[in-house]
Amino acid sequence: MSEKLRQHIEKITPLTDIEFEYILSHFVPKKLKKHQFLVQEGAPVQYDYFVLSGLLKASYTNPEDGKEYILQFAWEDWWTTDYQAYFNQSNAILSLDCIEETEVLALSLTNREKICAEMHKIEHFFRRKSNSGYIALQRRILSLLTTSAQERYEQLLACYPDLIQRVPKTIIASYLGVSRETLSRFTY
Amino acid sequence: MSEKLRQHIEKITPLTDIEFEYILSHFVPKKLKKHQFLVQEGAPVQYDYFVLSGLLKASYTNPEDGKEYILQFAWEDWWTTDYQAYFNQSNAILSLDCIEETEVLALSLTNREKICAEMHKIEHFFRRKSNSGYIALQRRILSLLTTSAQERYEQLLACYPDLIQRVPKTIIASYLGVSRETLSRFTY
Repeated sequence: MSEKLRQHIEKITPLTDIEFEYILSHFVPKKLKKHQFLVQEGAPVQYDYFVLSGLLKASYTNPEDGKEYILQFAWEDWWTTDYQAYFNQSNAILSLDCIEETEVLALSLTNREKICAEMHKIEHFFRRKSNSGYIALQRRILSLLTTSAQERYEQLLACYPDLIQRVPKTIIASYLGVSRETLSRFTY
Repeated sequence: MSEKLRQHIEKITPLTDIEFEYILSHFVPKKLKKHQFLVQEGAPVQYDYFVLSGLLKASYTNPEDGKEYILQFAWEDWWTTDYQAYFNQSNAILSLDCIEETEVLALSLTNREKICAEMHKIEHFFRRKSNSGYIALQRRILSLLTTSAQERYEQLLACYPDLIQRVPKTIIASYLGVSRETLSRFTY
């Protein structure tokens, strides 16, 4: 299963067996059941997570009305955590919980900085990943600014048809920022 | 003026004089007048820009109705470009133009990758900057999902009181996603 991490890193930089074993030794494997939390709002954030299998959502709950907003989904081959809390070592403002049974490899900030300092190629890998993440978020902002919820639903369906099957409709509605009833009008 | 770049990098990693001169030799200085474009929608994106002085906006124009959406502002000590186009060497979907007379240091992707490969500490610097950028965008998404335009105006005023003075009201309105008339109701 951890071979998935190797394949993922090797899309950016080649590794020897020894290098990969060394990198892997800095991760902690975790298995989670459906509905279990990896990050809980208000709690410290110890790890960044590389998803081996399963599906998670990162969400924010408005303390005033208890309404949940989905920031993003993460599944196989994605990294996810509350990055603001992780990098600043502050408490989470997001929650991260499992929509399906999930297996992850968890990397603490100390270990991330350690392997980045020790191995230039890993620093390079994480820089490239961070650049891609930045571009993805910029696209999401543009989409929030310029498209309707129905257009966003159609984009999601076109880009990630599997996701629509795997995620309950109430959660898709919350990602799009509409009610469950409004979503049902898009999916006739 | 280029000392500003050194101070900016040294917030993350110390540099010798020789290292800084070497890094600086990979940048091209540019001076721009008010309303001049650094990045133009549809054109290739050659550079990432470190702002020495002035003020820029990154915007997207909807081809259907010609409406302009402001993605972000950039001023002293910020980096800005159309990152999707820059990293993927594709044509810009954003425009980047000067709200004030602006001086920048421009870094091509080839030179960025060169100094990152040659100097581990520069790769580290850009990884850290990219992480901060990611966090800032995540905050903007949360704000777009969970707050009203009036609340976003008040956040902007609290965080960047100077910006409100420097940017024309029509552009602030476009950043918030409201009409000029709606904005005037927030600013009584």
